[in-house]
Amino acid sequence: MQAHAFRLTPGTDLKEALERITDAHALRAGCVLTCVGSLSQARLRMPGAAGEEDLFTTFAGPMEIVSLVGTLGPDGLHVHISLSGRDGVCVGGHLVRGCIVHTTAELVIGELPQVEFRRVQDEETGYLELSVQPRPSDGAP
Amino acid sequence: MQAHAFRLTPGTDLKEALERITDAHALRAGCVLTCVGSLSQARLRMPGAAGEEDLFTTFAGPMEIVSLVGTLGPDGLHVHISLSGRDGVCVGGHLVRGCIVHTTAELVIGELPQVEFRRVQDEETGYLELSVQPRPSDGAP
Amino acid sequence: MQAHAFRLTPGTDLKEALERITDAHALRAGCVLTCVGSLSQARLRMPGAAGEEDLFTTFAGPMEIVSLVGTLGPDGLHVHISLSGRDGVCVGGHLVRGCIVHTTAELVIGELPQVEFRRVQDEETGYLELSVQPRPSDGAP
Repeated sequence: MQAHAFRLTPGTDLKEALERITDAHALRAGCVLTCVGSLSQARLRMPGAAGEEDLFTTFAGPMEIVSLVGTLGPDGLHVHISLSGRDGVCVGGHLVRGCIVHTTAELVIGELPQVEFRRVQDEETGYLELSVQPRPSDGAP
Repeated sequence: MQAHAFRLTPGTDLKEALERITDAHALRAGCVLTCVGSLSQARLRMPGAAGEEDLFTTFAGPMEIVSLVGTLGPDGLHVHISLSGRDGVCVGGHLVRGCIVHTTAELVIGELPQVEFRRVQDEETGYLELSVQPRPSDGAP
Repeated sequence: MQAHAFRLTPGTDLKEALERITDAHALRAGCVLTCVGSLSQARLRMPGAAGEEDLFTTFAGPMEIVSLVGTLGPDGLHVHISLSGRDGVCVGGHLVRGCIVHTTAELVIGELPQVEFRRVQDEETGYLELSVQPRPSDGAP
């Protein structure tokens, strides 16, 4: 596994930054290894049952990033986050645009050298789901 | 560090899947690097003081997996999880059987090539605790 | 990426242990890959707006460690944690001294071999912020 580290500055949109990193480093099978920092505000998609309408919730900060998990690849990223507020209580959900870095976000991203993360339509869930595929031989170094 | 990636499908028991992965890949010093996905229900063991009876709690989903941490090896696994509900609030605890994948769980598991995770009885805690040992020379490739 | 694994025993201060590990292994670009275990008590710094006074909160345990994220290097460490209590509810924040291991803490720490994590004064935030720098050639083994 290879790894890359970054510091994001105040005002950066976390999801957009992850998308830019994925593009700039041509990540084909990336994953979030660690992220520590803070957000000034967060917009997250909440979990829902099949058929339930998508629910997005905005949380006012500042909040500490206490976890960031997910996968990054050429067909997009899938990332969840949890955050703690001034009373310590944690909230979390599915990362969408609108999560804005407060003072910093320190990120370490890993990449698996031998596979590629693709997303293919899954009839059962209705979503584009992760498919871990061998990396084509004309691939990355 | 080597790494392996997996997608778990709806209805899979998360702990059983981690046990199967440990066996199938003969992991001797594995750790959870990232996990993103959702559960339809969760059963967790809650923390307790010495002498307190074990307490298991079931949480109804769907919930987002916002963190998964732990170690995997030939003597078993030790994994904790946190989950966010539709109101964003996070709950967590010690992973036991009964945590069922809702739409997906994307997992990246690392393996340390030079050591072995054993579990040995600890007189102080009363548990089988992690012992990080050099990997025997007749070991993995 | 290289990785090191450790088990911390009851009564250990988690932040002090991370500082000792950073020193003992001369980590120049370390990150927390996974941590599973429990605390008997926790003292955390809460997030605050610019100009707001630092707020430290103590949480009584036992609590499960459900996430630990952060970076470790020669200029110090930056680590956040989240914890679940007997009711499952999660709290979190910025790790400071006073987080005491209950039964165990199993830690896997990664190190990026080609860079160095330095901390430099940031005029915008007022903090020493992460600077990811190429590793000097007289560097680590």
